Amino acid sequence: MNDSAFALNPRLEADTLAVGDLALCRVLLMNDARFPWIILVPRRAGARELTDLSPEDQATLLAEIGAASRAMQRLIHPHKLNTAAIGNVVAQLHIHIVARFEDDAAWPAPVWGHGAREPYDEDESSGFVGLLQRELGYL
Amino acid sequence: MNDSAFALNPRLEADTLAVGDLALCRVLLMNDARFPWIILVPRRAGARELTDLSPEDQATLLAEIGAASRAMQRLIHPHKLNTAAIGNVVAQLHIHIVARFEDDAAWPAPVWGHGAREPYDEDESSGFVGLLQRELGYL
Repeated sequence: MNDSAFALNPRLEADTLAVGDLALCRVLLMNDARFPWIILVPRRAGARELTDLSPEDQATLLAEIGAASRAMQRLIHPHKLNTAAIGNVVAQLHIHIVARFEDDAAWPAPVWGHGAREPYDEDESSGFVGLLQRELGYL
Repeated sequence: MNDSAFALNPRLEADTLAVGDLALCRVLLMNDARFPWIILVPRRAGARELTDLSPEDQATLLAEIGAASRAMQRLIHPHKLNTAAIGNVVAQLHIHIVARFEDDAAWPAPVWGHGAREPYDEDESSGFVGLLQRELGYL
């Protein structure tokens, strides 16, 4: 299902850690220790809006949002998930799945644009990426 | 497909204008003239997360997000759509579909928590609700 013309937006690449590829989406972990925050990027060149995806891709995306959401729920037990396709800054279609807690750094505000990113320690991020890989069935 | 125990959250009701019901979702127009902003509320009592919906309901929701998105695209030609299930303040599952422009009041920040709502004039809102009803196939 890969799209050979797909290339990850450089800003998304710079701000995240790679988790792996699902059937449709590249899975990224936002490199921000304040919030457990997955980003799914459908590997479809030129897609900006959900409506740019074919119905088949939309159904796959929905399944992958579900898989990523359940992985976060099993690993982290968030009070609430925030799921969003915004793309005002980076237009390449990408879906945020953020695990939120009532005592996190931004609650109850959304995380987008909230303060400065706090990168993970390397040990911390590799541990979290490994857990996500296991939950998503790579390992 | 109605859920007889479903009741719209009072805050959502207070902040919006009714557009109508699709197969799964109640369709609302956020009463904020700054941003063309639809809210879809699946009529399922107790649903907080996308993952609380059955696979069938998730597929219907995806179709209704697509219908509402295309209605906004046809009517308004936004630069970008922002689509999100957040629910930090109102936990009842609801999906925002916001038409964004590079010269709107919040661009490129998200609209949530941005300044104060500016209610529509009655003529303006009834005109917009009528257009949405027509695009969504009620009229």
